[in-house]
Amino acid sequence: MLEELKEAVLAANQELPKRGLVTLSWGNVSGRDASTGLIAIKGSGVPYESMSIDDIVLVAEDGSTVEGRRRPSTDTPTHIALYKGLAGTGGVVHTHSRWAASWAQARRPIPLLGTTHADFCVGPVPVTAPLGPEETWSDYEGGTGAAIIRALAGRKPSEVPAVLVSGHGPFCWGGNAAAAVEAAVTLEAVAEMAWLTVALAPGGELLEEHIAERHFSRKHGPGAYYGQA
Amino acid sequence: MLEELKEAVLAANQELPKRGLVTLSWGNVSGRDASTGLIAIKGSGVPYESMSIDDIVLVAEDGSTVEGRRRPSTDTPTHIALYKGLAGTGGVVHTHSRWAASWAQARRPIPLLGTTHADFCVGPVPVTAPLGPEETWSDYEGGTGAAIIRALAGRKPSEVPAVLVSGHGPFCWGGNAAAAVEAAVTLEAVAEMAWLTVALAPGGELLEEHIAERHFSRKHGPGAYYGQA
Amino acid sequence: MLEELKEAVLAANQELPKRGLVTLSWGNVSGRDASTGLIAIKGSGVPYESMSIDDIVLVAEDGSTVEGRRRPSTDTPTHIALYKGLAGTGGVVHTHSRWAASWAQARRPIPLLGTTHADFCVGPVPVTAPLGPEETWSDYEGGTGAAIIRALAGRKPSEVPAVLVSGHGPFCWGGNAAAAVEAAVTLEAVAEMAWLTVALAPGGELLEEHIAERHFSRKHGPGAYYGQA
Amino acid sequence: MLEELKEAVLAANQELPKRGLVTLSWGNVSGRDASTGLIAIKGSGVPYESMSIDDIVLVAEDGSTVEGRRRPSTDTPTHIALYKGLAGTGGVVHTHSRWAASWAQARRPIPLLGTTHADFCVGPVPVTAPLGPEETWSDYEGGTGAAIIRALAGRKPSEVPAVLVSGHGPFCWGGNAAAAVEAAVTLEAVAEMAWLTVALAPGGELLEEHIAERHFSRKHGPGAYYGQA
Repeated sequence: MLEELKEAVLAANQELPKRGLVTLSWGNVSGRDASTGLIAIKGSGVPYESMSIDDIVLVAEDGSTVEGRRRPSTDTPTHIALYKGLAGTGGVVHTHSRWAASWAQARRPIPLLGTTHADFCVGPVPVTAPLGPEETWSDYEGGTGAAIIRALAGRKPSEVPAVLVSGHGPFCWGGNAAAAVEAAVTLEAVAEMAWLTVALAPGGELLEEHIAERHFSRKHGPGAYYGQA
Repeated sequence: MLEELKEAVLAANQELPKRGLVTLSWGNVSGRDASTGLIAIKGSGVPYESMSIDDIVLVAEDGSTVEGRRRPSTDTPTHIALYKGLAGTGGVVHTHSRWAASWAQARRPIPLLGTTHADFCVGPVPVTAPLGPEETWSDYEGGTGAAIIRALAGRKPSEVPAVLVSGHGPFCWGGNAAAAVEAAVTLEAVAEMAWLTVALAPGGELLEEHIAERHFSRKHGPGAYYGQA
Repeated sequence: MLEELKEAVLAANQELPKRGLVTLSWGNVSGRDASTGLIAIKGSGVPYESMSIDDIVLVAEDGSTVEGRRRPSTDTPTHIALYKGLAGTGGVVHTHSRWAASWAQARRPIPLLGTTHADFCVGPVPVTAPLGPEETWSDYEGGTGAAIIRALAGRKPSEVPAVLVSGHGPFCWGGNAAAAVEAAVTLEAVAEMAWLTVALAPGGELLEEHIAERHFSRKHGPGAYYGQA
Repeated sequence: MLEELKEAVLAANQELPKRGLVTLSWGNVSGRDASTGLIAIKGSGVPYESMSIDDIVLVAEDGSTVEGRRRPSTDTPTHIALYKGLAGTGGVVHTHSRWAASWAQARRPIPLLGTTHADFCVGPVPVTAPLGPEETWSDYEGGTGAAIIRALAGRKPSEVPAVLVSGHGPFCWGGNAAAAVEAAVTLEAVAEMAWLTVALAPGGELLEEHIAERHFSRKHGPGAYYGQA
């Protein structure tokens, strides 16, 4: 079933170590089939080096496995919550990438300091509020998805393609699995440059709003003129 | 047309990911043919992995495409402004390389702290003043070129082969596309070492002027004795 | 003798440079055969590039060589002390990996700042007290093992799979040589992210205890649900 | 002439980019033949990628070229001064390696913070005093060699195998060219870990003297027991 989706999700997962975004088996990418609502996701704890199409699991929106020999990623309920809550999302990725995870551990949103950030995201990259003990013990992964959606505070998922989970690491999304991985690559570069910048300019140097808007609109929306038509 | 120039510009663009200077499709190199004034530049948003000679576009000094199936880089007007304003320039490169971009985001010129810098550039690497809203919305890329030239403040382009665009990243230049990329490689090393140095010596430790002059003159000008004759 | 153990120890040693954990010949992995009590360990000062099964030495618990042409690692008495003192340990690794060694040199335990750490270790990663002159000159390597066991202060080795030796670097352990190397890889990532985090949030942002417990229990113990059954 | 020496010097130069110690053509290794006193050194500005035995030049102690088509490295007079001034030295290397150069640019000796340093060098790694204008203009490279020897202040070259040239970068040495490169690799690791450590422990945490002595004596001198007999 859905061979093309599974192949795309496999390729997107394999991209993570190539891009330096994962260590060992930490991290997972999923993709969603819009017509059936089924989600293809990496099996839990599967190492990237030996991963094959048989390590990709198909799950329904209720979390049940539809196809696959593997147990799906433990983070599957977070992915499902994001597909339900973030309109237009066809791919989700979670990593512990170093620079983004450091902002998440410091509980600091990534401030908009430059055009690399502005090309990617409108405003700062938010951090979730930590889950309380009850939610942590009853529905940790689903609750994490809900916390991410709350952190967006009504901002559009296409304008804020990433959220930092407090004390944990980033979740990113896009129209499909490859776009979600591209968001994760971009977020990591943005997180690194912001880290290096605040060390040089501790008071912060926010990008001018007109330059931020101009940059986002070069790449996104009806007036975009970046890339090939 | 100008096959040799296009091949040189293709090779110079391909050098960027090998040197760790670009992520995804961010960055572009151009080269100028002195006799016709035509500029060869990378197509907008083209990924480096699959780039071929067909992704290099020839543009005239008025920005119109003379040859090529691709839309040229969105930064083309900045490149054109630099060729016009910086005498003797035959190659221009723009990247979001991490260390240089961090100085640009912090709005701090890179101070002359050591001989690696002195071998490359006379005095600090300047940062542009940010564009105002009007210029940003009317002619963002051309205005960026003008801001770079203003930041040089009359210093010679052969003695200051790079400028940091405030909140954005570096533009570098040289006699041809390969020389511009060599400047970008050097700038990134200089930016990294300066970052590491100011963390150890926050008050700064400027290089003695006589040592800076001696180093620049070892590599440049009539008394140069570095390299092979 | 014990060919399988020696092969596993060779492979685990070769994993260290692949994971970026060692420079030159610094570092060593051993594995213990539970039935005979014999330990297979890397020869002292052997370079990783040319290492073969003949560079792995079998030693008894009294430190005497049972098989092998090489002198065993100078750190062998530390490994032996850990096998004796840490119940259930079948593999030990020592490196000078950069981030972990920096915490060791700063004499600071690594605080529990995020879920990557919580997945791996209950509470902070401890630092040993420095050895006094007498122990240093009479039994430096054995004394180092004893200091590591003292630093655990009764915490379970399966819940604290690493200790930083003050002014030196990490020792890590696990059920076998491969598990010990996985602990060393994880520790280095944890050390790096903690370093980056404290620079952003100098006051520290400890992970909530309920989230730390939830994460450790996702991966370890009877209720674990991470990975494949 | 001296084919074996030239091959060893070529291999040692080629090791620099493999170890991440050089960018572009910055850096050079030489080796000295004890019986003739001749020195084999890299040609000036030669790129590492295409370097061959023909790019290695033989020079006499007065700096004159004895064999080779290339102009020798501009730093040749510094190498010669070190061979003359540092007894037992058979190999010298100069790089602009990032972490060591940052300490050099900050004008700070690298403090002895851990055992990686103690295994390598007795006491801190010194920094030279800057040359005055007169020496800079009359005999910059020879004066740099003299400044390095002064910075040792009578300490033994076998116990202090590296000095940082103020505002510039490291020079390292050893019994032959390969040993000098090993010193450069070690120095860079030591410089990186010291940098990371002082950020965590700004007041510094010097290694206990008895541990430093024990470590140096494990690897050097009559009581050494590290490595194979």
